[in-house]
Amino acid sequence: MRKILLGLIILPTLLASQNDSLMLRKIYDYYLVNGRAYDHLRELTKTIGGRLSGSPQAAKAVAWAQKIMRESLADTVYLQPCMVPHWERGAKEICFLNDGGKKLPLKVTALGSSVGTGAKGITASVVEVHSFDELEKLGTAVKGKIVFYNVFFNQRHISTGTAYGETVKYRALGASRAAKYGAVAVLVRSMSSVADDEPHTGNMRYDTSISRTKIPAVALSYIAADALHNVIATKNTATVYLETHCQQLPPSPSYNVVAQINGTVDNQIIVSGGHLDSWDNGEGAHDDGAGVVQTIEILYLYKALGIKPRHTIRVVAFMNEENGLAGGQAYAKEAKQKNEVHLAALETDAGGFTPRGFGVDTLNGLYNKVQGMKKLFEPYLVLHLATDGGGADISPLEEMKVPCIGFEPDSQRYFDIHHTARDVFESVNKRELHLGGATIAALIYLLDQHL
Amino acid sequence: MRKILLGLIILPTLLASQNDSLMLRKIYDYYLVNGRAYDHLRELTKTIGGRLSGSPQAAKAVAWAQKIMRESLADTVYLQPCMVPHWERGAKEICFLNDGGKKLPLKVTALGSSVGTGAKGITASVVEVHSFDELEKLGTAVKGKIVFYNVFFNQRHISTGTAYGETVKYRALGASRAAKYGAVAVLVRSMSSVADDEPHTGNMRYDTSISRTKIPAVALSYIAADALHNVIATKNTATVYLETHCQQLPPSPSYNVVAQINGTVDNQIIVSGGHLDSWDNGEGAHDDGAGVVQTIEILYLYKALGIKPRHTIRVVAFMNEENGLAGGQAYAKEAKQKNEVHLAALETDAGGFTPRGFGVDTLNGLYNKVQGMKKLFEPYLVLHLATDGGGADISPLEEMKVPCIGFEPDSQRYFDIHHTARDVFESVNKRELHLGGATIAALIYLLDQHL
Repeated sequence: MRKILLGLIILPTLLASQNDSLMLRKIYDYYLVNGRAYDHLRELTKTIGGRLSGSPQAAKAVAWAQKIMRESLADTVYLQPCMVPHWERGAKEICFLNDGGKKLPLKVTALGSSVGTGAKGITASVVEVHSFDELEKLGTAVKGKIVFYNVFFNQRHISTGTAYGETVKYRALGASRAAKYGAVAVLVRSMSSVADDEPHTGNMRYDTSISRTKIPAVALSYIAADALHNVIATKNTATVYLETHCQQLPPSPSYNVVAQINGTVDNQIIVSGGHLDSWDNGEGAHDDGAGVVQTIEILYLYKALGIKPRHTIRVVAFMNEENGLAGGQAYAKEAKQKNEVHLAALETDAGGFTPRGFGVDTLNGLYNKVQGMKKLFEPYLVLHLATDGGGADISPLEEMKVPCIGFEPDSQRYFDIHHTARDVFESVNKRELHLGGATIAALIYLLDQHL
Repeated sequence: MRKILLGLIILPTLLASQNDSLMLRKIYDYYLVNGRAYDHLRELTKTIGGRLSGSPQAAKAVAWAQKIMRESLADTVYLQPCMVPHWERGAKEICFLNDGGKKLPLKVTALGSSVGTGAKGITASVVEVHSFDELEKLGTAVKGKIVFYNVFFNQRHISTGTAYGETVKYRALGASRAAKYGAVAVLVRSMSSVADDEPHTGNMRYDTSISRTKIPAVALSYIAADALHNVIATKNTATVYLETHCQQLPPSPSYNVVAQINGTVDNQIIVSGGHLDSWDNGEGAHDDGAGVVQTIEILYLYKALGIKPRHTIRVVAFMNEENGLAGGQAYAKEAKQKNEVHLAALETDAGGFTPRGFGVDTLNGLYNKVQGMKKLFEPYLVLHLATDGGGADISPLEEMKVPCIGFEPDSQRYFDIHHTARDVFESVNKRELHLGGATIAALIYLLDQHL
């Protein structure tokens, strides 16, 4: 009797698991053989290119995403308005080191949200620091000078994102912290895994609680930072000329692009997203064109395989992740206003590389549920599960207690190209992109079946 | 009493495991921060380049490997002689399709060991087949014609090596099988994951038990194969001109380059290797410069960390993996003659990509032992373990019942560049290469401690 009862319980579980296993194989087959994500990415990067919030390219990207979501025959496609910051780089940055009468050019890129120097530029001597502590000790000794944050990526970390997390504060807050002591500009060593000559842009912000003065901030390429360091180390002094033409314009209207396949059982939502905006110096291929085309592909997949979801599957191409998060905030605000129930939110914003796993919130037991699905991913070599999940765009949903998931592709090459001119279509491998897409779609499918 | 006994057993195991864990962290730190593998690879690929057996470049590579092994201060460095085949590509291949008076060029590369057409070339009509079965059905209908093996990589496989394993037979034996029915040459669709215009070379062999006639064999690029297929599909016929100048010269003397750090407990051997030879059309960066520099780095690592191995750690840069395996056979022959005891043999010949795991022989319980070490690799995201291990160069050791291990890096990009002009230094990522090297060194270290 006990054996029979046990059989009655185990058999349906086994069958469900077998069905899941078969469906996952179909999902991976679809992406690997018929997936359109790579072709969509080519369109987005090569016909539109870099698409910073407020730019004409960002507006084109919105129209493009709406078009390809409609072509997927999703049940609903709509634009969700948000007001985005509008920062422009302007004319190309100029930076050189005055080295005994010779001008040694240094490759730099203005940081997003930075003020410009204007046409007259800034000439000042440079003070090199390796931490905020060192800056604090120098204090007003940096007055009238340019502060150079020379902090390397820690290559010992296995996940490059950890190294980024440790150093990004110099990019984000370095200007306000130096302005507090009267510095006139900051140069920040790029957050880079690789010793090349590509400066990495990225957002900074002026924290008026630290200083009300806004000074220009640029990133130096790895090689430029080395060159500057070497001159300072040898001569104990360095004078740099810096000229940037960036400016903050009035906020402008933009949109998240949203599509969904309605649930057949209820209208509770499982949402998956990437961000449509990107930096202006590359094509935003890995960051985050990859995430956008991977998630839009979910719509095509459901139609192609004739899957009717139990809950509502929603796909979002978020706007303004890079310099404001206006899209993510608008999404969460509307979700709250409409009393929408989100069962889970997933973000893919770590590049279109080989899938390694997920970071999953422990909230509502989601981590344990996904852990129970781990075996299903083994044939696809998706073997890693961490408890810290999420993504910037979906982070405003945390206030509503939505459990969040971050897709984790392999991280080794990401900070070679992140926020640089090298983040172009050619740096994306089709199989890696599609395997990542399939992995995301597979988890969305399983969550829909089992939540 | 039982508790105390259990404690006495468990405590040393726990301590050993902690020591292992600390040492693995040191090994990864060494590779990520101080590793020279990437710089060594630059030397090998940029100053020597492609190095096919018998070529002057292969001879230079032998001298180079010997030099950097000596610089590592290994206990012994020596050359192990072997006679290698000496095939030369000669002048660049010419191939075009006669399409109604127009000449449509097709990108091809002669297959290793193939005879050439000579300066007069071959003009013949083309018969397309998709399997050996189809060829057998056609039989003598292919007489006087060129057989075109148009077999695609199966993109559904998660490991690209599986797709390669399925299709490589057309490259290896396609010529003899077609010659049996009187064909005059063969064109083989490249073993490629990517739809580009790079033909992939690789070895073929004439199987005289199938046919005594040697006909020329070349690989078509993916795009050239598509173009040829399209003409045949549209017009039901196609005529191709093929001109190749390759030839097999008399065998020539060459060497494996071997180094070792002597065991402090015994002279039983743990051997790790990659192959020094490569195809001539690229720089042999992933295949297998990466494997060579990763394993040579083990010698530097042991010196830098002051590790004294229990058993003898031997590193081999094998010669002639690509077209003959003379080096692997010479190594096994000498090991047998000298009654050497090999505890394990590892090969790294799948590219310098992010490490995913190992394939390990079940022989002598090796798989179970490595499975017991799996947890130690988790912090490094090396999570996959399979029971099928090994590599071509170490395969002759199987006769001596040596358990073999194949290092498994991520496979997604390998067959984009494998055996093409794109297998160059620039296609290798430093962190991926060094993480792979650290993973191999970590396993070698653990095997030395626990075998």
